[in-house]
Amino acid sequence: MGAAQDAVPPGEGAPAVVLLSGGLDSATVLAMVCEQGFVAHGLAFRYGQRHAHELEAAKDIAALQNATLQIVDIDLRAFGGSALTSDEPVPKDRDEKAMAATIPITYVPARNTIFLSFALAKAEVLNARDLFIGANAVDYSGYPDCRPAFISAFEALANVATSVVDKEDERFRVHAPLMNMGKAEIIATGHRLGVDYGRTWSCYDPERNKACGRCDSCKLRHRGFVDAGIDDPTPYAVGPPDAE
Amino acid sequence: MGAAQDAVPPGEGAPAVVLLSGGLDSATVLAMVCEQGFVAHGLAFRYGQRHAHELEAAKDIAALQNATLQIVDIDLRAFGGSALTSDEPVPKDRDEKAMAATIPITYVPARNTIFLSFALAKAEVLNARDLFIGANAVDYSGYPDCRPAFISAFEALANVATSVVDKEDERFRVHAPLMNMGKAEIIATGHRLGVDYGRTWSCYDPERNKACGRCDSCKLRHRGFVDAGIDDPTPYAVGPPDAE
Repeated sequence: MGAAQDAVPPGEGAPAVVLLSGGLDSATVLAMVCEQGFVAHGLAFRYGQRHAHELEAAKDIAALQNATLQIVDIDLRAFGGSALTSDEPVPKDRDEKAMAATIPITYVPARNTIFLSFALAKAEVLNARDLFIGANAVDYSGYPDCRPAFISAFEALANVATSVVDKEDERFRVHAPLMNMGKAEIIATGHRLGVDYGRTWSCYDPERNKACGRCDSCKLRHRGFVDAGIDDPTPYAVGPPDAE
Repeated sequence: MGAAQDAVPPGEGAPAVVLLSGGLDSATVLAMVCEQGFVAHGLAFRYGQRHAHELEAAKDIAALQNATLQIVDIDLRAFGGSALTSDEPVPKDRDEKAMAATIPITYVPARNTIFLSFALAKAEVLNARDLFIGANAVDYSGYPDCRPAFISAFEALANVATSVVDKEDERFRVHAPLMNMGKAEIIATGHRLGVDYGRTWSCYDPERNKACGRCDSCKLRHRGFVDAGIDDPTPYAVGPPDAE
């Protein structure tokens, strides 16, 4: 597993599959992948999320990095079980202790497992061996499928699930280069690489086409900008979250 | 991992998610699951396969067992890489040595990984802990994602990918009860459990709405019936395959 940034070998023109959500984290990962010389192939999903802002952001982000982008349609609404794919309300105005206490209702069952499975299919067809995901366990540890053990287990699966199982000298690598980075460090890294964070989208529950400023995702995002000492370019519906 | 049939505990009314392809193997698995007392929830996929016969068969099979059936739309054609999801010709008239020699072109990249990922999402929402798949490594070992190492690796992934990771006394079990059974043994088992194999579909490349009798899948299926001493109810376009 490539959890640490310095464990990722230079890409040198090799193809890589990068999961793109349109958010701040995956935009940063894409910039890191391109800086390392990989030829990046973005993969995003129209999965029944409540709004299309993040897919528009994913398109912008891929185009800015000259990466291809494939959008796959899968209907996770058919399974339910999450506020992000149902009509259950998104929690707002929670403090960080509340965010960290339990697996939040915005967890979508098996979402990253499904996303990485499609990334694996795409990688096998492209003959790519490197998969990148913006999973992060520091600022938001509530999601099981954003933890190091999940990334390691998926990498182990990938190497027995596909045709590489019969090739002794080929192995998939699943990289989560943000795993151990705080939000401010992620933003500072992307800022250095020229990521236009004004084109990324994080809000779970926008109001009047602007970020709500009150959901967990808005709050963590804004705190990251404040801590990094970088202006937050996000348009908020009623002003930025209080910096607590 | 529950590869052997006798390692599967009685279901006693517990929910289970069963992958259904409409084929002989998964129909047999469903009958075994129901016999063990599980409440079976079938899951099938409209994934860009070349014909709809198998989904019609999956509906019939689920209905005969009083199982629910959810059909999920995913477009694996967008990835290509397989004769089953593209216009590449399906191999025909191959002998068993040729079938076993390499990973066949009918392998769909990461297909079972994707299918089990959706089954995991469904199981998590249903609060089911048992997933069943008709993977089999005896008669057709060419597919990496039908081998015991794949099933074990997916089970390990499931238990770190979902909310059970934080529950000490709950674990997912991925069962592949046919793993070590030959085709004739599978057919004899299903026959004993009352499976109507005339309602199942195996052919990769039907001709005039009948099984071609010449693809690998038709040949293995027919040989199984011959070896089990049970009449093959399959309607073949030009008669059954030669029993070699």
